[in-house]
Amino acid sequence: MGKKLTTRSEDYSKWYNELVVKADLAENSGVRGCMVIKPYGFAIWEKMQAQLDKMFKETGHENAYFPIFIPKSYFTKEASHVEGFAKECAVVTHYRLKNAEDGNGIVVDEDAKLEEELIVRPTSETIIWDTYRRWIQSYRDLPIMVNQWANVVRWEMRTRLFLRTAEFLWQEGHTAHATREEAMDEAEQMMHVYAEFAEDYMGVPVIKGTKTESERFAGAEETFCIEALMQDGKALQSGTSHFLGQNFAKAFDVKFATKDGKQDHVWATSWGVSTRLMGALIMTHSDDNGLVLPPKLAPIQVVIVPIYKGMDQLDAISEHVDPLIKELRSKGISVKYDSRDTHKPGFKFNEYELKGVPVRVAIGQRDLENGTFEVARRDTLKKETIDANVVVERISSLLEEIQENIYQKALDYRETHITKVDSYEDFKSVLEEKGGFISAHWDGTRETEERIKNETKATIRCIPFPSAKEEGKCMVTGKSSTQRVLFARAY
Amino acid sequence: MGKKLTTRSEDYSKWYNELVVKADLAENSGVRGCMVIKPYGFAIWEKMQAQLDKMFKETGHENAYFPIFIPKSYFTKEASHVEGFAKECAVVTHYRLKNAEDGNGIVVDEDAKLEEELIVRPTSETIIWDTYRRWIQSYRDLPIMVNQWANVVRWEMRTRLFLRTAEFLWQEGHTAHATREEAMDEAEQMMHVYAEFAEDYMGVPVIKGTKTESERFAGAEETFCIEALMQDGKALQSGTSHFLGQNFAKAFDVKFATKDGKQDHVWATSWGVSTRLMGALIMTHSDDNGLVLPPKLAPIQVVIVPIYKGMDQLDAISEHVDPLIKELRSKGISVKYDSRDTHKPGFKFNEYELKGVPVRVAIGQRDLENGTFEVARRDTLKKETIDANVVVERISSLLEEIQENIYQKALDYRETHITKVDSYEDFKSVLEEKGGFISAHWDGTRETEERIKNETKATIRCIPFPSAKEEGKCMVTGKSSTQRVLFARAY
Repeated sequence: MGKKLTTRSEDYSKWYNELVVKADLAENSGVRGCMVIKPYGFAIWEKMQAQLDKMFKETGHENAYFPIFIPKSYFTKEASHVEGFAKECAVVTHYRLKNAEDGNGIVVDEDAKLEEELIVRPTSETIIWDTYRRWIQSYRDLPIMVNQWANVVRWEMRTRLFLRTAEFLWQEGHTAHATREEAMDEAEQMMHVYAEFAEDYMGVPVIKGTKTESERFAGAEETFCIEALMQDGKALQSGTSHFLGQNFAKAFDVKFATKDGKQDHVWATSWGVSTRLMGALIMTHSDDNGLVLPPKLAPIQVVIVPIYKGMDQLDAISEHVDPLIKELRSKGISVKYDSRDTHKPGFKFNEYELKGVPVRVAIGQRDLENGTFEVARRDTLKKETIDANVVVERISSLLEEIQENIYQKALDYRETHITKVDSYEDFKSVLEEKGGFISAHWDGTRETEERIKNETKATIRCIPFPSAKEEGKCMVTGKSSTQRVLFARAY
Repeated sequence: MGKKLTTRSEDYSKWYNELVVKADLAENSGVRGCMVIKPYGFAIWEKMQAQLDKMFKETGHENAYFPIFIPKSYFTKEASHVEGFAKECAVVTHYRLKNAEDGNGIVVDEDAKLEEELIVRPTSETIIWDTYRRWIQSYRDLPIMVNQWANVVRWEMRTRLFLRTAEFLWQEGHTAHATREEAMDEAEQMMHVYAEFAEDYMGVPVIKGTKTESERFAGAEETFCIEALMQDGKALQSGTSHFLGQNFAKAFDVKFATKDGKQDHVWATSWGVSTRLMGALIMTHSDDNGLVLPPKLAPIQVVIVPIYKGMDQLDAISEHVDPLIKELRSKGISVKYDSRDTHKPGFKFNEYELKGVPVRVAIGQRDLENGTFEVARRDTLKKETIDANVVVERISSLLEEIQENIYQKALDYRETHITKVDSYEDFKSVLEEKGGFISAHWDGTRETEERIKNETKATIRCIPFPSAKEEGKCMVTGKSSTQRVLFARAY
């Protein structure tokens, strides 16, 4: 496995980068800013996808697929959207290469220049609303509840695996509704769906809220979000859901005949989560020994490592272990039996610790004689010797315990890292010394928000939802405020 | 539902285009050559994906994800690959747009020109083998059995929904092996997996074979394929699996330490199927009334349509139907109950016929009194009246019957459309008058193959596998031949 990981206290950022690579999750590719998601990392993403997809379908959504390219002119149709998205992006200008005249390699064929440049989608509102114009004539065509799983590209200058990459994978829901209320309910609903997924499956506690105007999605009238807290005290936005009003319907001229025969513009939402969630998952639970995965998303939930000398002992152990593997699998538990003779048990223990496998079962000659197994849990690293006749039961309950325990641990950390402050001085010292979320009064102006950001690098992560009204004074300007908002430095 | 479909005999090509759009499968987008896959079409593709993915995993493969962009220089590394793929493609030359100086919209920022152009992947061998170089050092790292589900772009001038689009969805498997034999076995195995999927799930009979040298994948030493026959007598290549030899390993310098300590280049395969399979599925089974879907891939397997006057009758029917729906669903059968009062039963019947729902159940006042259901099957359009106490059983067996029947029907068509000919004259007349596959002797030269293609538009679809040796003379040149090959005009 090579050298030990850098520890979190030594260098949190380096620890993260090393962990992602050493645990075989992802790596940088030969293409600037684009990552390769390796099989083990992708297997986690697949489990996340499968669960999210199920939750989307249970809430009435269907999948579809829209083009990866968006004509440049589409972006200019929604005024604020173009500012947010049409700038740092990959631009396709030609559709052919040809052999170089000097015989050296291939060059762009200048005769094959596109009349209008195509943008590789950074998000799909524009191409989708151009399509919805054809799908929607009447209230009978509404609502449209569509999601797509896709790759998107945003040309980022400073990239980090999973957290910020030029190309990333995500899902983007795009719904169309007959009324403002219905669209607003949908946008809020998806925030709850995301929060449920983050907490119940990823084991990542999140705070629900809405974004301030300056942090909203480009083109949205309201942005709902879920915010998680990493172990270094920085926040990570983990999912957003936008109420888009009639902005895109107006930009793309999407009207419908109402029940009473009038014409109205359609109301819209969009919502998305991305492979960034992998970053949140990794940073929330992992430790200096490596990854810690929630059992519900672990590609391998249980690894069994035989400890043996010679093939006779291995055969005896394998025979003994076989019914255990079958029984675990019949309960839907994913099991790997690692009997490789090319690596020692100690190497394997380290490897599965690094890869975050929730439960490790070891069995040697003495266990065989005693009818026991050594069962170790990844979250606490505790080991216990378990009788063969209760081992399946114990492993099942252990998986549930681990899922619950890592959530609780993250929640405890989060709860002790929300600090109420009433002065800007306290704000700055908490930010420097403790980090985490800071709950403070703010006067509601873009200017104050901007000033705080410039002076401290902290941003308003969200206005908590549902809002808890409380009279107060802005910690910076002293102007009156009706509720506290949450600040943090963020990824 | 608008006007009736153009019939197949009137204009097969027009029938197909209309059907794809009217059955809500896909449509053209505002982006030249790129399609929108609509929710109903995508639901079929999802079912195909799920089954294929299961079969890939059962044969030892894992999923991963590689970048969508490929640096231009990568293409020039494998000599024959560049000829095949680097020409008609989408080229990214810039990474930023800016506001136009005249204030009119946005323009490409010439300051943001890439040093090296990026190609939107037409296939991923180059970027993947550039990655494998980092993954493979020793025989212990082999085999690598990776698949990715992705979008790819090939700049096609003449496009048709599903059959040929600039952007399409596919999977591409890329495996790396220590020996020639193992790689060859893998490439052959995947041809069998594809054939099993096509026949057992899509209900599409296929002929397995290998491609001639001129029809091989650019960079392959052997291409295995499955070929299906459409109702208009044209063949459709439905999946290919390539033995790539050491070509990509040599081009990207991927070597490994063998067991006996030597260095050798790695052996490779790649294999893929795409949304083109949707075209094969549609054209194989559908009729002049619309789509006919195999039950195993139908998003809705059973639709239940109540026939009622007034809400009292509807309530009585709904109550009566409820346990039937529950029981069907408990058996894993997907059921839609369409009680919309905005459309008449006749309209609904036409809609589900057009959409290829395998089984339609109708229930009216008289059925309610008699304790019966009217059950109609989409493939033969036959109706029967079934007693309530056996209706679940009948529907289950009907779904199996339909799956089997449409396969058998397609197989019968295919079997009567393989014609043996021994002269070029007969070849041309069969091709004109009957179409289908033509089994003939060929002298094995590229020149003769080319001449036949130019003169008749027929290509060698495959050399059937396993090969059936038969001495003969080339129908064109009279030179000796050792086996018949299959010709056809193709999509």
